[in-house]
Amino acid sequence: MEFSSKLLERAVNEMSQLPGIGKRTALRLVLHMLRQSKDQTMALSEALQSMRSNVKFCKSCHNISDIELCEICSNPNRNETIVCVVEDIRDVMAIENTSSFKGLYHVLGGKISPMDGVGPHDLNIESLVSKVKQGIIKELIFALSSTMEGDTTNFYIYKQIQKYKIVTSTIARGISVGDELEYADEITLGRSIVNRIPFETSLKL
Amino acid sequence: MEFSSKLLERAVNEMSQLPGIGKRTALRLVLHMLRQSKDQTMALSEALQSMRSNVKFCKSCHNISDIELCEICSNPNRNETIVCVVEDIRDVMAIENTSSFKGLYHVLGGKISPMDGVGPHDLNIESLVSKVKQGIIKELIFALSSTMEGDTTNFYIYKQIQKYKIVTSTIARGISVGDELEYADEITLGRSIVNRIPFETSLKL
Repeated sequence: MEFSSKLLERAVNEMSQLPGIGKRTALRLVLHMLRQSKDQTMALSEALQSMRSNVKFCKSCHNISDIELCEICSNPNRNETIVCVVEDIRDVMAIENTSSFKGLYHVLGGKISPMDGVGPHDLNIESLVSKVKQGIIKELIFALSSTMEGDTTNFYIYKQIQKYKIVTSTIARGISVGDELEYADEITLGRSIVNRIPFETSLKL
Repeated sequence: MEFSSKLLERAVNEMSQLPGIGKRTALRLVLHMLRQSKDQTMALSEALQSMRSNVKFCKSCHNISDIELCEICSNPNRNETIVCVVEDIRDVMAIENTSSFKGLYHVLGGKISPMDGVGPHDLNIESLVSKVKQGIIKELIFALSSTMEGDTTNFYIYKQIQKYKIVTSTIARGISVGDELEYADEITLGRSIVNRIPFETSLKL
């Protein structure tokens, strides 16, 4: 792509570094900014700068937070004996939206993925193990993606905390609500039969 | 969406103002920035700011340019008697890539679209008419989108410059190179038959 302006070229190149944004999309976005008022572009870039410079992570669960201990960790109404292990702050937001979990979270910051160069030491696993060691946590719920990397990460953490004899669980795998059986994959369908629940229980959900 | 940090929320809200970027995508992009080094986010926001503050438009063709008269307009090897009228600087880049046009451009900055609140006075039409008035231009090529808005804009400009008796043309509409006939729409196929060209001419392309 040949640009008629170096300023434009640099802006497009920087935008296209973002995941899922190619040169064409970056150009479209940058041209949109040029059509809008200057204030809007300034507000965007100022928001990105101040977020990147000032964002903090909760010292306990590693969720993004403006304060040292995030609102969930510092809420006395939450059950600190149950901790849900997730990859990412997006998972915290998704689970919080369901209003079905009243424990605390632990954000790993990713999953073990040798292909992407992510090992156990790149994740917040040590701090989780030391929290378990303290003896307050009674149950750990693994809520990672149902992929090979997710399963590997679950298993790695399980091995580390096994000796502390706490309850560990993983979120249920099964047919999604609203899904038709014939389109479900074999493994999901198989697991949903093996892990069936009493009908009376399902009525209460 | 509930955010655990106001800084994060503001960055996501600003990003999601961009076209085609919803809240979820914005969050994905912002979290990506948090995983990357701080320098990269700073470089991006600095590039956007300096582009928005310092970008110039060519005083003749309204293309984006770092200098007063863009490289195309100031190139003595280009034919200033033929002007190609386009919507957007992306169209200039696309036509330049084909190396098939050696005239100058005129960038309108959009097309007449009452639905989007864009009227003729929001576009660079007056400056085009006054260029035609000067008498240097011999041919105007309309290279706008083949949509109702594009056709309206073509016709509006045609009406304005009709009295100056210059040649006006539109780019050819027809079957795209590599397309199969059976998938072409009726209007395109119809036009391609009406506007057929001598076979000997097509051999030379």
